[in-house]
Amino acid sequence: MRKKEKISEKTITRFPLYLQILKDLQQKGTQTISSQLIAHQALVKASQFRKDLSYFGEFGKPGSGYSVEHLIERIVNILSLSCRHQAVLVGAGNLGMALYNFPGFKEWNFEITRIFDNAPAKIGKKTGKITIENIDKLPLDLKIPLGIIAVPALAAQTIADLLVQSKIKGILNFSGVKLSTPPAIMVRNVDLTYELAILNYYCCID
Amino acid sequence: MRKKEKISEKTITRFPLYLQILKDLQQKGTQTISSQLIAHQALVKASQFRKDLSYFGEFGKPGSGYSVEHLIERIVNILSLSCRHQAVLVGAGNLGMALYNFPGFKEWNFEITRIFDNAPAKIGKKTGKITIENIDKLPLDLKIPLGIIAVPALAAQTIADLLVQSKIKGILNFSGVKLSTPPAIMVRNVDLTYELAILNYYCCID
Repeated sequence: MRKKEKISEKTITRFPLYLQILKDLQQKGTQTISSQLIAHQALVKASQFRKDLSYFGEFGKPGSGYSVEHLIERIVNILSLSCRHQAVLVGAGNLGMALYNFPGFKEWNFEITRIFDNAPAKIGKKTGKITIENIDKLPLDLKIPLGIIAVPALAAQTIADLLVQSKIKGILNFSGVKLSTPPAIMVRNVDLTYELAILNYYCCID
Repeated sequence: MRKKEKISEKTITRFPLYLQILKDLQQKGTQTISSQLIAHQALVKASQFRKDLSYFGEFGKPGSGYSVEHLIERIVNILSLSCRHQAVLVGAGNLGMALYNFPGFKEWNFEITRIFDNAPAKIGKKTGKITIENIDKLPLDLKIPLGIIAVPALAAQTIADLLVQSKIKGILNFSGVKLSTPPAIMVRNVDLTYELAILNYYCCID
Protein backbone atom coordinates (compact mmCIF):
# COMPACT_ATOMS: atom_id res chain seq x y z
CA MET A 1 0.00 0.00 0.00
CA ARG A 2 1.26 3.50 -0.76
CA LYS A 3 1.59 6.04 1.98
CA LYS A 4 -1.79 7.17 3.23
CA GLU A 5 -0.77 10.84 3.14
CA LYS A 6 -0.89 10.76 -0.65
CA ILE A 7 -4.56 9.80 -0.87
CA SER A 8 -7.10 12.57 -0.59
CA GLU A 9 -9.96 12.55 1.85
CA LYS A 10 -12.38 12.80 -1.08
CA THR A 11 -11.01 9.54 -2.49
CA ILE A 12 -11.14 7.64 0.78
CA THR A 13 -14.68 8.89 1.35
CA ARG A 14 -15.84 6.83 -1.61
CA PHE A 15 -14.46 3.49 -0.38
CA PRO A 16 -17.10 2.67 2.24
CA LEU A 17 -19.74 3.21 -0.43
CA TYR A 18 -17.95 0.93 -2.90
CA LEU A 19 -17.70 -1.64 -0.15
CA GLN A 20 -21.42 -1.43 0.64
CA ILE A 21 -22.31 -1.85 -3.04
CA LEU A 22 -20.01 -4.85 -3.34
CA LYS A 23 -21.43 -6.47 -0.20
CA ASP A 24 -24.94 -6.06 -1.59
CA LEU A 25 -23.83 -7.68 -4.85
CA GLN A 26 -22.17 -10.54 -2.98
CA GLN A 27 -25.37 -11.18 -1.02
CA LYS A 28 -27.22 -11.45 -4.33
CA GLY A 29 -24.70 -14.03 -5.54
CA THR A 30 -22.83 -11.80 -8.04
CA GLN A 31 -19.26 -13.01 -8.53
CA THR A 32 -17.73 -10.56 -11.01
CA ILE A 33 -18.56 -6.94 -11.76
CA SER A 34 -17.54 -4.24 -14.23
CA SER A 35 -16.18 -0.90 -13.10
CA GLN A 36 -19.07 0.72 -15.02
CA LEU A 37 -21.67 -1.00 -12.89
CA ILE A 38 -20.07 -0.20 -9.54
CA ALA A 39 -19.40 3.37 -10.63
CA HIS A 40 -23.00 3.79 -11.78
CA GLN A 41 -24.33 2.66 -8.40
CA ALA A 42 -21.85 4.90 -6.58
CA LEU A 43 -22.78 7.90 -8.74
CA VAL A 44 -19.20 8.35 -9.98
CA LYS A 45 -17.62 7.90 -13.40
CA ALA A 46 -16.08 4.49 -14.18
CA SER A 47 -12.76 6.25 -14.79
CA GLN A 48 -13.01 7.74 -11.29
CA PHE A 49 -13.62 4.34 -9.76
CA ARG A 50 -10.64 2.83 -11.58
CA LYS A 51 -8.45 5.77 -10.56
CA ASP A 52 -9.50 5.40 -6.92
CA LEU A 53 -8.54 1.73 -6.92
CA SER A 54 -5.25 2.43 -8.70
CA TYR A 55 -3.95 4.23 -5.60
CA PHE A 56 -3.70 0.84 -4.01
CA GLY A 57 -2.10 -1.09 -6.87
CA GLU A 58 -3.66 -3.21 -9.59
CA PHE A 59 -7.09 -4.81 -9.35
CA GLY A 60 -8.97 -6.96 -11.86
CA LYS A 61 -8.27 -7.57 -15.54
CA PRO A 62 -9.31 -5.26 -18.37
CA GLY A 63 -12.39 -6.63 -20.09
CA SER A 64 -13.18 -9.36 -17.60
CA GLY A 65 -14.31 -7.22 -14.67
CA TYR A 66 -13.46 -7.48 -11.02
CA SER A 67 -13.95 -10.38 -8.64
CA VAL A 68 -16.49 -9.14 -6.09
CA GLU A 69 -14.93 -11.22 -3.33
CA HIS A 70 -11.40 -10.07 -4.11
CA LEU A 71 -12.48 -6.44 -4.30
CA ILE A 72 -14.24 -6.66 -0.91
CA GLU A 73 -11.11 -8.17 0.63
CA ARG A 74 -8.93 -5.42 -0.80
CA ILE A 75 -11.18 -2.58 0.32
CA VAL A 76 -11.58 -4.10 3.79
CA ASN A 77 -7.78 -4.20 3.86
CA ILE A 78 -7.41 -0.64 2.55
CA LEU A 79 -9.77 0.67 5.22
CA SER A 80 -8.21 -1.60 7.82
CA LEU A 81 -11.64 -2.97 8.73
CA SER A 82 -10.57 -6.53 9.45
CA CYS A 83 -9.30 -5.77 12.95
CA ARG A 84 -11.27 -4.45 15.89
CA HIS A 85 -11.44 -0.68 16.39
CA GLN A 86 -12.34 1.01 19.63
CA ALA A 87 -14.23 4.24 20.05
CA VAL A 88 -15.22 6.37 23.02
CA LEU A 89 -18.69 7.92 23.06
CA VAL A 90 -19.47 11.21 24.79
CA GLY A 91 -23.18 11.81 25.28
CA ALA A 92 -25.52 9.07 26.43
CA GLY A 93 -28.71 10.71 25.17
CA ASN A 94 -30.98 9.33 22.46
CA LEU A 95 -28.43 9.85 19.70
CA GLY A 96 -25.56 8.41 21.72
CA MET A 97 -27.55 5.34 22.65
CA ALA A 98 -28.72 4.90 19.06
CA LEU A 99 -25.08 4.93 17.98
CA TYR A 100 -24.07 2.55 20.74
CA ASN A 101 -26.76 0.09 19.69
CA PHE A 102 -26.21 0.60 15.98
CA PRO A 103 -25.69 -2.89 14.48
CA GLY A 104 -23.63 -1.49 11.59
CA PHE A 105 -20.79 -0.54 13.91
CA LYS A 106 -20.32 -4.12 15.06
CA GLU A 107 -20.58 -5.43 11.52
CA TRP A 108 -17.64 -3.23 10.52
CA ASN A 109 -15.64 -4.19 13.63
CA PHE A 110 -16.11 -0.93 15.48
CA GLU A 111 -16.83 -1.10 19.16
CA ILE A 112 -17.75 1.66 21.59
CA THR A 113 -15.83 0.65 24.70
CA ARG A 114 -16.34 3.67 26.99
CA ILE A 115 -19.25 6.09 27.38
CA PHE A 116 -19.16 9.44 29.19
CA ASP A 117 -21.97 11.80 30.18
CA ASN A 118 -22.50 14.65 32.64
CA ALA A 119 -26.03 13.80 33.83
CA PRO A 120 -26.10 12.46 37.41
CA ALA A 121 -29.08 10.28 36.46
CA LYS A 122 -26.99 8.52 33.80
CA ILE A 123 -23.56 8.29 35.45
CA GLY A 124 -22.99 4.82 36.93
CA LYS A 125 -25.86 3.26 34.93
CA LYS A 126 -25.00 0.18 32.93
CA THR A 127 -25.81 -0.08 29.24
CA GLY A 128 -24.89 -3.43 27.70
CA LYS A 129 -21.45 -4.26 29.07
CA ILE A 130 -20.51 -0.63 29.71
CA THR A 131 -20.99 1.58 32.76
CA ILE A 132 -21.57 5.23 31.87
CA GLU A 133 -18.76 7.33 33.36
CA ASN A 134 -18.62 10.88 34.62
CA ILE A 135 -17.28 13.33 32.02
CA ASP A 136 -15.36 14.95 34.88
CA LYS A 137 -12.89 12.06 34.60
CA LEU A 138 -11.59 13.53 31.35
CA PRO A 139 -8.96 14.34 30.28
CA LEU A 140 -7.08 11.08 30.78
CA ASP A 141 -5.01 8.92 28.46
CA LEU A 142 -7.85 6.89 26.95
CA LYS A 143 -5.68 4.82 24.61
CA ILE A 144 -8.68 4.82 22.26
CA PRO A 145 -8.18 6.30 18.78
CA LEU A 146 -11.71 7.44 17.92
CA GLY A 147 -14.07 9.75 19.75
CA ILE A 148 -17.76 10.21 18.99
CA ILE A 149 -19.39 13.48 20.06
CA ALA A 150 -23.15 13.16 20.56
CA VAL A 151 -23.75 16.10 22.89
CA PRO A 152 -25.74 19.33 22.38
CA ALA A 153 -24.15 22.05 20.26
CA LEU A 154 -23.19 24.28 23.17
CA ALA A 155 -21.12 21.56 24.86
CA ALA A 156 -19.42 20.25 21.74
CA GLN A 157 -16.24 22.36 21.69
CA THR A 158 -15.54 21.68 25.38
CA ILE A 159 -15.91 17.96 24.76
CA ALA A 160 -13.70 18.12 21.68
CA ASP A 161 -10.98 19.82 23.76
CA LEU A 162 -11.26 17.12 26.42
CA LEU A 163 -11.03 14.36 23.81
CA VAL A 164 -7.96 15.94 22.22
CA GLN A 165 -6.32 16.17 25.66
CA SER A 166 -7.30 12.53 26.15
CA LYS A 167 -5.16 11.65 23.10
CA ILE A 168 -7.81 10.56 20.67
CA LYS A 169 -6.79 10.88 17.02
CA GLY A 170 -10.10 11.31 15.25
CA ILE A 171 -13.55 12.70 16.05
CA LEU A 172 -16.94 11.83 14.61
CA ASN A 173 -18.95 14.95 15.36
CA PHE A 174 -22.75 14.80 15.46
CA SER A 175 -23.21 18.09 17.30
CA GLY A 176 -23.83 20.19 14.19
CA VAL A 177 -21.15 22.64 15.38
CA LYS A 178 -17.89 23.21 13.55
CA LEU A 179 -15.11 22.22 15.95
CA SER A 180 -11.78 23.90 16.38
CA THR A 181 -9.10 21.21 16.78
CA PRO A 182 -5.35 20.83 16.18
CA PRO A 183 -4.45 19.97 12.55
CA ALA A 184 -3.33 16.45 13.50
CA ILE A 185 -6.85 15.57 14.63
CA MET A 186 -9.10 14.26 11.88
CA VAL A 187 -12.70 15.41 12.27
CA ARG A 188 -15.69 14.11 10.33
CA ASN A 189 -18.89 16.10 10.77
CA VAL A 190 -22.19 14.34 10.35
CA ASP A 191 -25.08 16.68 9.68
CA LEU A 192 -28.28 14.70 9.41
CA THR A 193 -30.08 17.75 8.06
CA TYR A 194 -28.10 17.66 4.81
CA GLU A 195 -29.77 14.49 3.71
CA LEU A 196 -33.23 15.79 4.44
CA ALA A 197 -32.45 18.97 2.51
CA ILE A 198 -31.33 16.94 -0.50
CA LEU A 199 -34.44 14.75 -0.37
CA ASN A 200 -36.57 17.80 -0.09
CA TYR A 201 -35.09 19.29 -3.23
CA TYR A 202 -36.21 16.32 -5.28
CA CYS A 203 -39.53 15.63 -3.61
CA CYS A 204 -41.03 18.96 -2.86
CA ILE A 205 -40.10 21.49 -5.51
CA ASP A 206 -42.28 21.65 -8.61
CA MET B 1 -34.50 28.51 -11.88
CA ARG B 2 -33.95 25.84 -14.50
CA LYS B 3 -35.85 22.58 -14.35
CA LYS B 4 -34.74 20.43 -11.47
CA GLU B 5 -34.52 17.31 -13.64
CA LYS B 6 -31.40 18.71 -15.30
CA ILE B 7 -29.38 18.92 -12.11
CA SER B 8 -27.63 15.79 -10.96
CA GLU B 9 -28.00 14.37 -7.47
CA LYS B 10 -24.24 14.71 -7.02
CA THR B 11 -24.51 18.47 -7.62
CA ILE B 12 -27.42 19.01 -5.27
CA THR B 13 -25.65 16.97 -2.61
CA ARG B 14 -23.02 19.69 -2.35
CA PHE B 15 -25.43 22.56 -1.67
CA PRO B 16 -26.21 21.86 1.99
CA LEU B 17 -22.47 21.80 2.64
CA TYR B 18 -21.95 25.11 0.84
CA LEU B 19 -24.79 26.53 2.89
CA GLN B 20 -23.29 25.33 6.17
CA ILE B 21 -19.92 26.85 5.28
CA LEU B 22 -21.57 30.16 4.37
CA LYS B 23 -23.60 30.22 7.60
CA ASP B 24 -20.42 29.65 9.60
CA LEU B 25 -18.75 32.52 7.74
CA GLN B 26 -21.74 34.77 8.35
CA GLN B 27 -21.63 34.01 12.08
CA LYS B 28 -17.98 35.08 12.07
CA GLY B 29 -18.93 38.36 10.39
CA THR B 30 -17.54 37.61 6.92
CA GLN B 31 -19.40 39.61 4.26
CA THR B 32 -17.80 38.57 0.96
CA ILE B 33 -16.02 35.39 -0.03
CA SER B 34 -14.10 34.01 -3.00
CA SER B 35 -15.12 30.82 -4.76
CA GLN B 36 -11.66 29.46 -3.96
CA LEU B 37 -12.22 29.76 -0.22
CA ILE B 38 -15.64 28.14 -0.20
CA ALA B 39 -14.44 25.41 -2.55
CA HIS B 40 -11.41 24.74 -0.36
CA GLN B 41 -13.59 24.28 2.72
CA ALA B 42 -16.02 22.07 0.80
CA LEU B 43 -13.17 19.94 -0.57
CA VAL B 44 -14.10 20.67 -4.19
CA LYS B 45 -12.35 22.61 -6.95
CA ALA B 46 -13.26 26.29 -7.32
CA SER B 47 -14.30 25.55 -10.90
CA GLN B 48 -16.67 22.88 -9.58
CA PHE B 49 -18.22 25.33 -7.14
CA ARG B 50 -18.74 27.95 -9.84
CA LYS B 51 -20.21 25.31 -12.16
CA ASP B 52 -22.61 24.15 -9.45
CA LEU B 53 -23.87 27.69 -8.91
CA SER B 54 -24.17 28.33 -12.65
CA TYR B 55 -27.06 25.84 -12.85
CA PHE B 56 -29.11 28.43 -11.08
CA GLY B 57 -28.11 31.51 -13.01
CA GLU B 58 -25.50 34.14 -12.28
CA PHE B 59 -24.04 34.84 -8.86
CA GLY B 60 -21.38 37.30 -7.76
CA LYS B 61 -18.93 39.32 -9.84
CA PRO B 62 -15.63 38.03 -11.18
CA GLY B 63 -12.78 39.29 -9.04
CA SER B 64 -14.87 40.74 -6.25
CA GLY B 65 -16.16 37.50 -4.77
CA TYR B 66 -19.62 36.60 -3.56
CA SER B 67 -21.80 38.29 -1.01
CA VAL B 68 -22.18 35.75 1.80
CA GLU B 69 -25.68 36.96 2.61
CA HIS B 70 -26.84 36.87 -1.00
CA LEU B 71 -25.36 33.42 -1.55
CA ILE B 72 -27.12 32.08 1.55
CA GLU B 73 -30.42 33.50 0.32
CA ARG B 74 -29.98 31.94 -3.10
CA ILE B 75 -29.04 28.50 -1.78
CA VAL B 76 -31.90 28.55 0.73
CA ASN B 77 -34.12 29.35 -2.23
CA ILE B 78 -32.59 26.66 -4.43
CA LEU B 79 -33.14 24.04 -1.75
CA SER B 80 -36.55 25.48 -0.94
CA LEU B 81 -35.61 25.74 2.72
CA SER B 82 -37.48 28.94 3.48
CA CYS B 83 -40.86 27.26 3.85
CA ARG B 84 -41.86 24.62 6.36
CA HIS B 85 -41.44 20.97 5.38
CA GLN B 86 -43.20 18.09 7.04
CA ALA B 87 -41.84 14.61 7.59
CA VAL B 88 -43.24 11.41 9.04
CA LEU B 89 -41.02 9.30 11.28
CA VAL B 90 -41.34 5.53 11.56
CA GLY B 91 -39.52 4.08 14.56
CA ALA B 92 -39.65 5.71 17.98
CA GLY B 93 -36.51 4.04 19.33
CA ASN B 94 -33.32 5.83 20.34
CA LEU B 95 -32.45 6.84 16.80
CA GLY B 96 -35.98 7.99 15.98
CA MET B 97 -36.18 10.08 19.14
CA ALA B 98 -32.73 11.54 18.49
CA LEU B 99 -33.93 12.62 15.05
CA TYR B 100 -37.17 13.99 16.41
CA ASN B 101 -35.28 16.08 18.95
CA PHE B 102 -32.51 17.05 16.55
CA PRO B 103 -32.27 20.87 16.66
CA GLY B 104 -30.84 21.02 13.13
CA PHE B 105 -34.13 19.88 11.63
CA LYS B 106 -36.00 22.83 13.09
CA GLU B 107 -33.27 25.24 12.08
CA TRP B 108 -33.71 24.17 8.46
CA ASN B 109 -37.52 24.32 8.68
CA PHE B 110 -38.12 20.59 8.76
CA GLU B 111 -40.70 19.28 11.16
CA ILE B 112 -41.59 15.72 12.08
CA THR B 113 -45.38 15.91 12.39
CA ARG B 114 -46.31 12.23 12.81
CA ILE B 115 -44.52 9.31 14.46
CA PHE B 116 -45.39 5.62 14.06
CA ASP B 117 -44.13 2.56 15.92
CA ASN B 118 -45.25 -1.02 16.49
CA ALA B 119 -44.37 -1.36 20.20
CA PRO B 120 -47.47 -1.43 22.44
CA ALA B 121 -45.46 0.33 25.17
CA LYS B 122 -44.85 3.29 22.85
CA ILE B 123 -48.15 3.58 20.97
CA GLY B 124 -50.32 6.32 22.47
CA LYS B 125 -47.40 7.91 24.36
CA LYS B 126 -46.88 11.61 23.84
CA THR B 127 -43.52 13.01 22.81
CA GLY B 128 -43.45 16.79 22.53
CA LYS B 129 -46.67 17.74 20.73
CA ILE B 130 -47.00 14.37 18.97
CA THR B 131 -48.73 11.17 20.03
CA ILE B 132 -46.99 8.04 18.76
CA GLU B 133 -49.37 6.14 16.49
CA ASN B 134 -49.76 2.46 15.69
CA ILE B 135 -47.96 1.42 12.50
CA ASP B 136 -51.01 -0.72 11.73
CA LYS B 137 -52.75 2.50 10.65
CA LEU B 138 -50.56 2.58 7.53
CA PRO B 139 -51.05 2.75 4.61
CA LEU B 140 -53.14 5.90 4.51
CA ASP B 141 -52.86 9.11 2.52
CA LEU B 142 -50.46 10.95 4.81
CA LYS B 143 -50.20 14.11 2.70
CA ILE B 144 -46.63 14.37 3.97
CA PRO B 145 -43.82 14.34 1.39
CA LEU B 146 -40.92 12.94 3.41
CA GLY B 147 -40.61 9.71 5.36
CA ILE B 148 -37.83 8.84 7.78
CA ILE B 149 -37.15 5.15 8.43
CA ALA B 150 -35.50 4.54 11.80
CA VAL B 151 -36.44 0.90 12.35
CA PRO B 152 -34.28 -2.25 12.56
CA ALA B 153 -32.94 -3.67 9.30
CA LEU B 154 -35.38 -6.57 9.12
CA ALA B 155 -38.44 -4.28 9.22
CA ALA B 156 -37.14 -1.63 6.83
CA GLN B 157 -38.48 -2.91 3.50
CA THR B 158 -41.97 -3.48 4.94
CA ILE B 159 -41.99 0.07 6.28
CA ALA B 160 -40.73 1.45 2.97
CA ASP B 161 -43.59 -0.32 1.17
CA LEU B 162 -46.11 1.14 3.63
CA LEU B 163 -44.69 4.63 3.19
CA VAL B 164 -44.82 4.36 -0.59
CA GLN B 165 -48.46 3.24 -0.36
CA SER B 166 -49.03 6.20 1.96
CA LYS B 167 -47.95 8.50 -0.91
CA ILE B 168 -44.71 9.85 0.50
CA LYS B 169 -42.29 11.07 -2.19
CA GLY B 170 -38.93 10.67 -0.53
CA ILE B 171 -37.36 8.44 2.11
CA LEU B 172 -34.47 9.09 4.45
CA ASN B 173 -33.32 5.58 5.31
CA PHE B 174 -31.29 4.94 8.46
CA SER B 175 -31.86 1.18 8.54
CA GLY B 176 -28.60 0.24 6.82
CA VAL B 177 -30.59 -1.89 4.36
CA LYS B 178 -30.84 -1.11 0.66
CA LEU B 179 -34.54 -0.52 -0.08
CA SER B 180 -36.43 -1.56 -3.15
CA THR B 181 -38.79 1.27 -4.15
CA PRO B 182 -40.49 2.57 -7.32
CA PRO B 183 -38.25 4.83 -9.47
CA ALA B 184 -40.33 7.91 -8.64
CA ILE B 185 -39.44 7.63 -4.96
CA MET B 186 -36.22 9.38 -3.99
CA VAL B 187 -34.27 7.49 -1.34
CA ARG B 188 -31.27 8.77 0.60
CA ASN B 189 -29.44 6.18 2.65
CA VAL B 190 -27.58 7.30 5.73
CA ASP B 191 -24.96 4.84 6.87
CA LEU B 192 -23.29 6.14 10.00
CA THR B 193 -20.62 3.48 9.71
CA TYR B 194 -19.13 5.11 6.61
CA GLU B 195 -17.92 8.08 8.56
CA LEU B 196 -16.31 5.95 11.22
CA ALA B 197 -14.58 3.90 8.53
CA ILE B 198 -13.18 7.06 6.93
CA LEU B 199 -11.97 8.41 10.27
CA ASN B 200 -10.39 5.11 11.03
CA TYR B 201 -8.41 5.16 7.80
CA TYR B 202 -6.74 8.41 8.79
CA CYS B 203 -6.34 7.78 12.48
CA CYS B 204 -5.45 4.18 12.86
CA ILE B 205 -3.34 3.02 9.95
CA ASP B 206 0.40 3.55 10.21
